[in-house]
Amino acid sequence: MLKSQGYAAQNASSPLAPFSFERREVGAHDVQLDILFCGVCHSDLHMARDEWKGTAFPVVPGHEIVGRVTKVGAHVTKFKVGQTVGVGCMVDSCQTCPSCGEGLEQYCENGFTGTYSAPDKVSGGYTYGGYANNIVVNEKFVLSVSDKLDPAGAAPLLCAGITTWSPLRHWKVGPGHKVGIVGLGGLGHMGVKLAHAMGAHVVLFTTSPDKREDALRLGADEVVVSKDAAQMAAHANSFDFILNTVAAQHNLDAFMVLLKREGTMTLVGLPEHPHPSPSVANFIFKRRHLAGSLIGGIQETQEMLDFCAEHGIHSDIEIIKIQDINQAYERMLKSDVKYRFVIDMASLAA
Amino acid sequence: MLKSQGYAAQNASSPLAPFSFERREVGAHDVQLDILFCGVCHSDLHMARDEWKGTAFPVVPGHEIVGRVTKVGAHVTKFKVGQTVGVGCMVDSCQTCPSCGEGLEQYCENGFTGTYSAPDKVSGGYTYGGYANNIVVNEKFVLSVSDKLDPAGAAPLLCAGITTWSPLRHWKVGPGHKVGIVGLGGLGHMGVKLAHAMGAHVVLFTTSPDKREDALRLGADEVVVSKDAAQMAAHANSFDFILNTVAAQHNLDAFMVLLKREGTMTLVGLPEHPHPSPSVANFIFKRRHLAGSLIGGIQETQEMLDFCAEHGIHSDIEIIKIQDINQAYERMLKSDVKYRFVIDMASLAA
Ligand SMILES: [Zn+2]
Ligand SMILES: [Zn+2]
Ligand SMILES: [Zn+2]
Ligand SMILES: [Zn+2]
Repeated sequence: MLKSQGYAAQNASSPLAPFSFERREVGAHDVQLDILFCGVCHSDLHMARDEWKGTAFPVVPGHEIVGRVTKVGAHVTKFKVGQTVGVGCMVDSCQTCPSCGEGLEQYCENGFTGTYSAPDKVSGGYTYGGYANNIVVNEKFVLSVSDKLDPAGAAPLLCAGITTWSPLRHWKVGPGHKVGIVGLGGLGHMGVKLAHAMGAHVVLFTTSPDKREDALRLGADEVVVSKDAAQMAAHANSFDFILNTVAAQHNLDAFMVLLKREGTMTLVGLPEHPHPSPSVANFIFKRRHLAGSLIGGIQETQEMLDFCAEHGIHSDIEIIKIQDINQAYERMLKSDVKYRFVIDMASLAA
Repeated sequence: MLKSQGYAAQNASSPLAPFSFERREVGAHDVQLDILFCGVCHSDLHMARDEWKGTAFPVVPGHEIVGRVTKVGAHVTKFKVGQTVGVGCMVDSCQTCPSCGEGLEQYCENGFTGTYSAPDKVSGGYTYGGYANNIVVNEKFVLSVSDKLDPAGAAPLLCAGITTWSPLRHWKVGPGHKVGIVGLGGLGHMGVKLAHAMGAHVVLFTTSPDKREDALRLGADEVVVSKDAAQMAAHANSFDFILNTVAAQHNLDAFMVLLKREGTMTLVGLPEHPHPSPSVANFIFKRRHLAGSLIGGIQETQEMLDFCAEHGIHSDIEIIKIQDINQAYERMLKSDVKYRFVIDMASLAA
């Protein structure tokens, strides 16, 4: 077995603390990496505190992983030792269902294996994530990270990046499109950067007027304070697509009415408490759509990483030591981060 | 002015009663018709009782009109005296906006003119509908009704037919598709017939087990009692498209979970009280869509009528005299009709 060091929560109310555990040895199709950086996603906090129920403890969170390959299995052809690679939210899937066949492993009909706290179909037990010094992953779920990318700023691309990229691509966002991004957090700031780089006219919706300057700097063409009814009304019936990254309970109708005929609003945030029921009239009278989207497939994750390398796109991050993870969670709860914490895993050895 | 005789409600609480009124004389682009049959739509009842607010009284309901042309304007080329024609939910629209340009007058950005109780931009005042002996309509909003169609059974095609046809066509329903129709009323029974004729595998969802035989006769391949959780679960993740015709408040999630990845459920009924808020997880984990659809455009209405003529499709109707309209409304409220009342307008002269 491979010895691993990381940080884990032992139960829903304990803080994250140092934890030693084992991973499987590299198999024929596996890649082993030393983790350099790991982004801190809201899901990590939800899972560590069992807020979605069903967390398997101890849990080592982390699914925005960038590392360096230290070992490859006998049949691995795509990766070699020394290469910079990434691992996102998935480490396995059935590879036989229609969704897997289409490269949409996130919708695997037999359920993908999450990077942490998921039943591990290869090794038994549960998966452990990226708040750790190393990881072993099937090469199919390992991404190539270009040398053009900063490894720390690239880490959040593995979840926040692909979660916004996938719907923007699926709904074919591009030049000539007016696209709304709701919320300027870890997901939203990536949505703004990516939609802008895709050539769309980007409008950022926020409840905080003080995020205006930052949103414009990140690539928004316009910023609308969503609490301002007059500002909102000025955009009625004008959006081709709205990517709604806000998980907190809110009024969807305020955004639905901004869609053009046949426009779509796609939700990527899972609310703890249901949103108010959206008005059916807003659907019917303009043939509008409400949809949802889950992270993204491996192939499209690679495309996103390559696109980001080409366009110089990273997440805006604040680097922390692993020892500061519990404070980082508290700050994240207050949205006190621009826009993603990333753990420098070198701190683990300190 | 043209003298007209019909039935009107004088206010929200008065029954429909005989009413004499005037319509404009035939203009250069108008068609005048003697009304033979007029279907009875739920909207008629809602409007007559001001349940959607904003009804202009007196109101002459009726927007499922089949009649015979008695006069045409000087510039009318599409229709001639003696021809059987139809008029649906719209009698006018701006003809200049993008939606009108695409033949989607129902989404006219400047608002279409409803067949009754709508401000009449041509003649002033308000429009009067089809519970009457005649009507004058711009030729652009007049449909050709094939001699192959029974004029009484064709009347409901003008609203119930096109309201189900338009979404089935827009979402490209056809052979190889598994399509659900929710509700077996005026709309639902047309949805079953049309989806079946389009070649789809049709599953009818109903709360009433006793509608089973009828649904199969109308063209459903399967009937599912939506209150039976086991029957519902057997269809999880299997539908390409679900057309939901039920306006009454109900749980959308029960149907959302039956959609395949990327499947769409389209609502055509406007609930008086909001449906429970649909679960966001059902959208996200399968990239599913919820949408709405409003009647249909003039061009697609003609296509639907021609399709029905070719395939021998009519509404299942019960013919009534205009004098029985108030009783028909009461029966309609109890869903005591298979599946549409149609007024024989000859009764008006009786
Ligand atoms: Zn994440
Ligand atoms: Zn699969
Ligand atoms: Zn109607
Ligand atoms: Zn128009």
